Amino acid sequence: MRQARTPVDPGSEPAEETLHLVSLLARLRTDQASSRADLARQSGLSRATVSQHVDFLLHKEMITETGPGESRGGRRPRLLRFRGEAGYVGAVDLGATSLDVAITDLRGRVLRHHAEEATVLRGPAPVLERAVALLGSLLAQFDLTRDRLWGIGMGVPGPVEYRTGLPVAPPIMPGWSGYPIPEYFARSFACPVFVDNDVNILARGEAAAGLGAGVDNFLFVKVGTGIGAGIVVHGHIYRGSQGCAGDIGHIAVDAASGANVICRCGNVGCLEALAGGAALAQLAEAAARGGQSALLAARLAERGTLTAADIAEMANKGDAWSTERIRSTGHLLGHTLAGLVNFFNPSLVVIGGGLANAGDSLLAAIREAVYRRSLPLATRALRIERSPLGGHGGVAGAAHVVLDELFSVGNLAYVVQLLDRNLSVQA
Amino acid sequence: MRQARTPVDPGSEPAEETLHLVSLLARLRTDQASSRADLARQSGLSRATVSQHVDFLLHKEMITETGPGESRGGRRPRLLRFRGEAGYVGAVDLGATSLDVAITDLRGRVLRHHAEEATVLRGPAPVLERAVALLGSLLAQFDLTRDRLWGIGMGVPGPVEYRTGLPVAPPIMPGWSGYPIPEYFARSFACPVFVDNDVNILARGEAAAGLGAGVDNFLFVKVGTGIGAGIVVHGHIYRGSQGCAGDIGHIAVDAASGANVICRCGNVGCLEALAGGAALAQLAEAAARGGQSALLAARLAERGTLTAADIAEMANKGDAWSTERIRSTGHLLGHTLAGLVNFFNPSLVVIGGGLANAGDSLLAAIREAVYRRSLPLATRALRIERSPLGGHGGVAGAAHVVLDELFSVGNLAYVVQLLDRNLSVQA
Repeated sequence: MRQARTPVDPGSEPAEETLHLVSLLARLRTDQASSRADLARQSGLSRATVSQHVDFLLHKEMITETGPGESRGGRRPRLLRFRGEAGYVGAVDLGATSLDVAITDLRGRVLRHHAEEATVLRGPAPVLERAVALLGSLLAQFDLTRDRLWGIGMGVPGPVEYRTGLPVAPPIMPGWSGYPIPEYFARSFACPVFVDNDVNILARGEAAAGLGAGVDNFLFVKVGTGIGAGIVVHGHIYRGSQGCAGDIGHIAVDAASGANVICRCGNVGCLEALAGGAALAQLAEAAARGGQSALLAARLAERGTLTAADIAEMANKGDAWSTERIRSTGHLLGHTLAGLVNFFNPSLVVIGGGLANAGDSLLAAIREAVYRRSLPLATRALRIERSPLGGHGGVAGAAHVVLDELFSVGNLAYVVQLLDRNLSVQA
Repeated sequence: MRQARTPVDPGSEPAEETLHLVSLLARLRTDQASSRADLARQSGLSRATVSQHVDFLLHKEMITETGPGESRGGRRPRLLRFRGEAGYVGAVDLGATSLDVAITDLRGRVLRHHAEEATVLRGPAPVLERAVALLGSLLAQFDLTRDRLWGIGMGVPGPVEYRTGLPVAPPIMPGWSGYPIPEYFARSFACPVFVDNDVNILARGEAAAGLGAGVDNFLFVKVGTGIGAGIVVHGHIYRGSQGCAGDIGHIAVDAASGANVICRCGNVGCLEALAGGAALAQLAEAAARGGQSALLAARLAERGTLTAADIAEMANKGDAWSTERIRSTGHLLGHTLAGLVNFFNPSLVVIGGGLANAGDSLLAAIREAVYRRSLPLATRALRIERSPLGGHGGVAGAAHVVLDELFSVGNLAYVVQLLDRNLSVQA
């Protein structure tokens, strides 16, 4: 398989200069530093070393000078600005039933975002063909040629071996196991492609632009068709040894809650088999047919099928069965999260995914169960909140996964090559 | 409270030279590098920079030259050796019923180790008084004065706020909550003191000298009077936001296994209340009295009380009740670990603590439950093994926690100060 991840082989240990340049660039692109003085103070490097690297970045037009800033006593410093517009990133967020595609700049700012219904059940080729077409069309809206993309990031709803970008036996994605996603994009784009689990992508988006900004250790829990968690440790996505960390949907829950339900993984009593979107949809249809909810029965008669979102909607309308189901789902989620809070001791748990919009009763039930079952020290400073990002979280996260990789030591030479191409096109 | 942890305030951002010196020293003290050429190649620093730092370390007698090594083509390089004997570390490992005290060198090699019975129930003052006396006596055996200790590390069987070294409401340590352990040692020793949870200490020991050496992500699970886990991420102890990560003893287990058992934490169905040493001892006494095990009944008649270790011993002698109890305990542990393996995706789980010696049947039952309940990708390369370290693991780990801290950027000035004192004593 064509390995499209690392465009430049890092070879031997990186030189001192590379390490310094990457660390200075990281401070500039995240706005931690905006002057030579900031950079010298924060990095511990000498003013001469900093100036040398800044001059290089100015010459390559990775940064620009923006006139004098405020003085700290001496001469007013010239401000430095990272040129987010020097390149672009393609971001793809594939859900079980949705496809989001976006173009961002090199700061991860979403410039154009297109969302449509799609289904992973169609298999990889038609879905990826559509993603490639949408990327092309979004680029065209900006009059950008395909070679202006510096990288593509994609999230998929299943386990991925991050190193190779290959889905590994994803339960709700028949036909995708081992499918070479990076290779597919490589037919149309020359840039490196990074594929990750959708929940990691959402966690990265939350760290970049949501509640996770500046938080050391947090969990992002997606409650949708499936249930999964993204783990952030010291600001970075923790993927585990095989890249499948955070797969919490198949943790066994309390038998009293229905451990006799068989999950699609073959085990009994999995969290996802009781609290996942597919399980909830089945329960809703049974409740509608059994006369337990007039509102759900009416919706079923109207549409012929029900989803977890219908339960959330009817709960918000005061339907008793739906309200109780949202509450018991929150308790199941909270019961499992309580154990993970004891184990991982995060300072924040962000709840996202379709069911997170089920109003405050879901969040209240999750909190109740976590605070009841977790140790006091583990919940002393714990916040449990709903993600504020909505549909943008996935594509923003996919873009940031790409940016983390591009501006790393191993890829610096590739970035310089792209900057040189920018300069030669202008000339 | 006297804050004995950071002897030198790091103040502003560390200078470039400090960062380089600390990174070179890390390679020398862990034997990753043994020559100037190794250091230059591994660090990316110039030969001139490396030589300058090496000369400094030679001058301070932190390292020494040991004659020419093998040539790689040019002049045979002079080898460099980290002087582990330049200073010493005191290591204290307090268990629920045991006290281990040791002196190690600056490589963490245990020079003298003393183990005795003790009980945390006596409260902090008598236990710490004994630890201080033992440290003094071990130092005396080496003709070392107290000021030759560069640091003291201690593990205690309960949650600790690592930053301050204060135990936080440790359930099996009445009287220890908030007790200023570092301050107690400071009455007798001038060096910094680091206090951590005993399971973190064991995990650090396993990373330094056991199965965890070179393993990126692993769990150390202690099954003793209590049950807890130490988490190692990318080679470092992960302590979580409040320092209490890994507290897995109070995760709820399957209700079918006895969720009606009330735990000392106030909840029902906690792992520790069903599989911990105290719970097992109670079950053993009930079995002995109820005529379910002749061997346990004989032991109870002989000693008047039973422990979990008795179950392990009788299982190894073929007692049916004990064998079944070890197996069901392994299944309970494995059931909980299965969820944590899905979440954390480690490549290794090390089982330690008193019950780990219960023979292969415990390990087999743990493995069986984990492989049955965890996702295939998460167990693809997972090893579940018994710790090979025995009683040395705790003190070795405590010493390595100290060494990690001493040879960090914030404490370099303190280390240089100690080296200068060595030189002035010799002069």
